[in-house]
Amino acid sequence: MSDIFQKTKSLFDLPDGILYLDGNSLGPLPIAAAARVEAVMKAEWGQMLITGWNKAGWMAQPNAVGDRLARLIGAQSGHVVVGDTLSIKVYQALDAALQLRPDRKVILSDSGNFPSDLYIAQGLIQALNQGHELRLVAPEDLHNHITEEVAVTLITQVDYRTGRLHDMCSITETAHQNGALCIWDLAHSAGAIEVELAKAKADFAVGCTYKYLNGGPGSPGFIYVAPHLIDNIEPTLSGWLGHAAPFAFAQGYEPGNGIDRMRVGTPPVLALASLEAALDVWDMVDMAELRAQSIALSQLFIAEIENKCPMLKLGSPRDPNKRGSQVAFHFQEGYAAMQALIERGVIGDFRAPDTMRFGFTPLYIDQQDVRAATDIIADVMQNRLWDADAYKIRAAVT
Amino acid sequence: MSDIFQKTKSLFDLPDGILYLDGNSLGPLPIAAAARVEAVMKAEWGQMLITGWNKAGWMAQPNAVGDRLARLIGAQSGHVVVGDTLSIKVYQALDAALQLRPDRKVILSDSGNFPSDLYIAQGLIQALNQGHELRLVAPEDLHNHITEEVAVTLITQVDYRTGRLHDMCSITETAHQNGALCIWDLAHSAGAIEVELAKAKADFAVGCTYKYLNGGPGSPGFIYVAPHLIDNIEPTLSGWLGHAAPFAFAQGYEPGNGIDRMRVGTPPVLALASLEAALDVWDMVDMAELRAQSIALSQLFIAEIENKCPMLKLGSPRDPNKRGSQVAFHFQEGYAAMQALIERGVIGDFRAPDTMRFGFTPLYIDQQDVRAATDIIADVMQNRLWDADAYKIRAAVT
Repeated sequence: MSDIFQKTKSLFDLPDGILYLDGNSLGPLPIAAAARVEAVMKAEWGQMLITGWNKAGWMAQPNAVGDRLARLIGAQSGHVVVGDTLSIKVYQALDAALQLRPDRKVILSDSGNFPSDLYIAQGLIQALNQGHELRLVAPEDLHNHITEEVAVTLITQVDYRTGRLHDMCSITETAHQNGALCIWDLAHSAGAIEVELAKAKADFAVGCTYKYLNGGPGSPGFIYVAPHLIDNIEPTLSGWLGHAAPFAFAQGYEPGNGIDRMRVGTPPVLALASLEAALDVWDMVDMAELRAQSIALSQLFIAEIENKCPMLKLGSPRDPNKRGSQVAFHFQEGYAAMQALIERGVIGDFRAPDTMRFGFTPLYIDQQDVRAATDIIADVMQNRLWDADAYKIRAAVT
Repeated sequence: MSDIFQKTKSLFDLPDGILYLDGNSLGPLPIAAAARVEAVMKAEWGQMLITGWNKAGWMAQPNAVGDRLARLIGAQSGHVVVGDTLSIKVYQALDAALQLRPDRKVILSDSGNFPSDLYIAQGLIQALNQGHELRLVAPEDLHNHITEEVAVTLITQVDYRTGRLHDMCSITETAHQNGALCIWDLAHSAGAIEVELAKAKADFAVGCTYKYLNGGPGSPGFIYVAPHLIDNIEPTLSGWLGHAAPFAFAQGYEPGNGIDRMRVGTPPVLALASLEAALDVWDMVDMAELRAQSIALSQLFIAEIENKCPMLKLGSPRDPNKRGSQVAFHFQEGYAAMQALIERGVIGDFRAPDTMRFGFTPLYIDQQDVRAATDIIADVMQNRLWDADAYKIRAAVT
């Protein structure tokens, strides 16, 4: 492990006895975040009151935080803005993309995409009532279905169940060759792998900040729009803070400058303070080094599990270059087994029907943690230490 | 002042020397809020990690907080949910209302409505592309323009500039007589006046929680939908947490039960923790008593200002039953004068072109504060203690 990850690990304080392999669902608390939020509440909100919007920079926060995220996802500074939730940001991107391709009716996605992205597409299609179609194909077949019918592809770069990684560069290139646009959902890739939005010539990207980025439960979403597209977008979610001059209180909407038009309402100042503390940790990290370490951890995990737990079947691509930073194993009694693991302090999660999912996050998980986790998993699996009655119970959170 | 407001005042710790008459823009920090957020961060997020969604009740928070808000706005329990921003909630309400009146094309609002509501209507009209019209009339004329052409009225109950109060009961009744629906924006009325959504038979209401409710900068919006309407609504912003079974991860959207379908994405847990602490204060308050005290404060303010500052012209209705909990005065050099007042610790705000706006919030402002504020205002106004060079500078925040 590089020195930098020893340092970053010291900036988290995970509970004793917990081996946290679920940072892909909710990242842990950075030690500095609580004090940061307290300072914003007491010294800014408490003391500055309304003047905090300017004096403390709250109004500029969505752009300032967006700029800090930009480096982690290979975006140009000034083209990422933070706010709302990921679902709302998917809506904005999809709505904008369809505006830019008025003569095309197909939204292409894959059956492994996160359901909320599909739901948002369904809602938008119904609202527009212009005969759009959400076309779902198998993840492996997606590339072959990019045709000149396609207005936009809506793809989560890393599959939330299997960790399977789509090739952003080649899919984007094929889309562009066919006159289609690409939206990349980075929910499971921002902070997990090297993302190169500008290099891949991505048109749109959206994501959340509460998984690998450690912003806290419900911390806001973000959106990226390629510089050459943003000026042609007329936002449907035309909230006042996306207006060119919000404090002129004009009656007619005029879209703000560049990415500012993707802002909607009042920024979530407390959540952004927590996210800023999380980004202080990220500022230390080189993404290539993070990716190498993440692969080392997941490869170790797969080797240990396959050696000790033959009843678990790998559900993720074996080639680390074809998966993100999480590993899935199939096991019929996976729900019950995962509950037993959580009882033992190994926190992963379960996705129906039979997927046990484990996330690897070099910021606070090292090889020793992975070995300790696989020892516990081996004990639970080899000795069937779960409650068979829990087998049919299904409850999970993302 | 009733004993209860002495008690509530003790639960805020305003900065020394500050007379805060801008709670209509951003409420102050409740003393207990910082510790509440810290506890959620350290004891819940830090210790429970992903399991906090169930163990700490985060997933149920938007409904639980909605139920606490319901009492303050005269809504039935189970029909208010918290999340997103007010602008997004306006979009949801307006989109739903137009679905329910497919044969009508007019959205009726008034020229005093908050611009973001108008912008959202403009964005929705453009996206739907079905020939809808946003019809704006003068606030006083609104009632007379409710015809059988109108699909929905979109009205902010208390005018953000003048404090002028629309009559919710009579407008709603007239709308219903004409077959139209009503959306009430409660941004400047929730926590400011008695609101009786159920009694008025309001169809939709939306609001924010960072003004009179003291949830903190950027704390979330809320939405109310009348029980008899909610089951007929197909949300366009169909995010996964509005799904009937979000954790089944089905590919097709099915709207959730009742008001749950107006949820969109992951709840903002830290912001909701702060808001919960603010609502602990509200739990002590009887809204009729609050309204009486608010009127006493604003009447005292108007009397003192008109006595001492004849150059200020009342811009709010003189009849306290026709205004909310804020008072506006017109003054040509109002921007510069307000900056001088803020320097002296009397914090109100300014709205172009010439409105000086002051909010009265019995939770932490008493008659002694009002007298102290009017003494300072009188000194500044009588002696023209402002920087004339600031006259033409326009900068403000809501």
